[in-house]
Amino acid sequence: MRKEANPGKDTELSSGLVEGRNAVTEALKAGRPLDKLFVAKGETDASLARIAAQAKAAGIPVVSIDRRKLDLMSTTGAHQGVIAAAAAKEYCSLEDILRVARDRGEDPFILVCDDITDPQNLGAMIRTAEAAGIHGVVIPKRHSAGVTATVEKTSAGATEYMAVARVPNIAAALDELKENGVWIYGTAAEGSSELWQTDLRGPIAIVIGSEGDGMSRLVSEKCDFRVSIPMYGKISSLNASCSAAVVIYEALRRRRTNSEVKKNG
Amino acid sequence: MRKEANPGKDTELSSGLVEGRNAVTEALKAGRPLDKLFVAKGETDASLARIAAQAKAAGIPVVSIDRRKLDLMSTTGAHQGVIAAAAAKEYCSLEDILRVARDRGEDPFILVCDDITDPQNLGAMIRTAEAAGIHGVVIPKRHSAGVTATVEKTSAGATEYMAVARVPNIAAALDELKENGVWIYGTAAEGSSELWQTDLRGPIAIVIGSEGDGMSRLVSEKCDFRVSIPMYGKISSLNASCSAAVVIYEALRRRRTNSEVKKNG
Repeated sequence: MRKEANPGKDTELSSGLVEGRNAVTEALKAGRPLDKLFVAKGETDASLARIAAQAKAAGIPVVSIDRRKLDLMSTTGAHQGVIAAAAAKEYCSLEDILRVARDRGEDPFILVCDDITDPQNLGAMIRTAEAAGIHGVVIPKRHSAGVTATVEKTSAGATEYMAVARVPNIAAALDELKENGVWIYGTAAEGSSELWQTDLRGPIAIVIGSEGDGMSRLVSEKCDFRVSIPMYGKISSLNASCSAAVVIYEALRRRRTNSEVKKNG
Repeated sequence: MRKEANPGKDTELSSGLVEGRNAVTEALKAGRPLDKLFVAKGETDASLARIAAQAKAAGIPVVSIDRRKLDLMSTTGAHQGVIAAAAAKEYCSLEDILRVARDRGEDPFILVCDDITDPQNLGAMIRTAEAAGIHGVVIPKRHSAGVTATVEKTSAGATEYMAVARVPNIAAALDELKENGVWIYGTAAEGSSELWQTDLRGPIAIVIGSEGDGMSRLVSEKCDFRVSIPMYGKISSLNASCSAAVVIYEALRRRRTNSEVKKNG
């Protein structure tokens, strides 16, 4: 399991460092590809020795280095004498996501997360997307949680299977999707298209706006449809990951019903 | 805003203490009923004086007490010299929830959260429930997050409007609901009734199981129907609050479509 990237740094791809005894033990147990294991020189306790032995048994080079070097390498400040270098999470391109759809012989079905800053929300959204058979998730480079350890954990491992594209600009990404025949459905409280009256079949991308402010104006203007989730209480919006789940599953219901009808007809 | 109950204590109703300068200021601003304001004796800074003046203006008794007494009173260990005693969150009874439905002239529509331990999940679920016009939420006394400050915050204030019943035993609560003509729909990965094939109209309670283990066996056996959410990926379940959102909104779609048909017919 990768740790959170240093929040002081920009939202670059996380380093792929696995830090701390439990995290490294879990990564070894899960058979996650690790390039190298760094252990603090001079540490002789049983737990570190066991980790080093497991790594060696798995063919992973084990290197003893000065504790101060470990400190410098650490992004969490809590390495407990052991850091593993794992392959960093590879983001993909929009073209990769469209290829997933083509390979499956399905209309593109894409989730776009516009400025979701809460890693728990992003993780839950990637999990729902994976469970729903969505072909890929698009997130922006800035103003968004990246696929960090918390996101991976909340996604229940779905990040391992889901194509995630991290784009410099969501509005430009929506243009690119539209050029590829994808219809853009944004979710907005003041949307003109009520969820249950909206036909979410065909090649679509669903855009979920940020927790606080919803979609940005520019992104909202790129949408072919602005969908509103019916609200019957005093609260005017759902949690972002719940909104995503409701719209994704309504789309799925329509798409699956449609394909079943086609099959039967 | 109430702070988290001491996690070391049992899951009793939270104390209704509002601690710290920001929290107390916000509670005053929101006009939340406060019984009394305790300020550390001898503190003379401007911020505390302003809080005390605001409380007095609102007719709230202000009491100067020894800082050590504040320390003893505090459940957060971070009172910053000020604690307000608010009315504790009132949980309601199952009968209260059924009365909400009767008063609105609607079939009971209830959410039961079986052992949801993550306060963010519980808050998101209460928020979805409120937005969907659900009549009440049932949570167990033990093995569950209570309606703490985190839950209130994540619910975006929905806890203020939603009837929440906290029951000693979920299985017994389901029996009581059944005696009142309510049908129980549990969600389970291995459920026999596929969501889109399930008629969720009429008097219903939707049961969402715990994040890790789903519904307990006893609770599962009380369900009239076990509903499965269709899954098309490698991940076998959604985040609990996302599951709740999907099932609640599918129920809502059926219920609203039904009532609209009736209206038009």
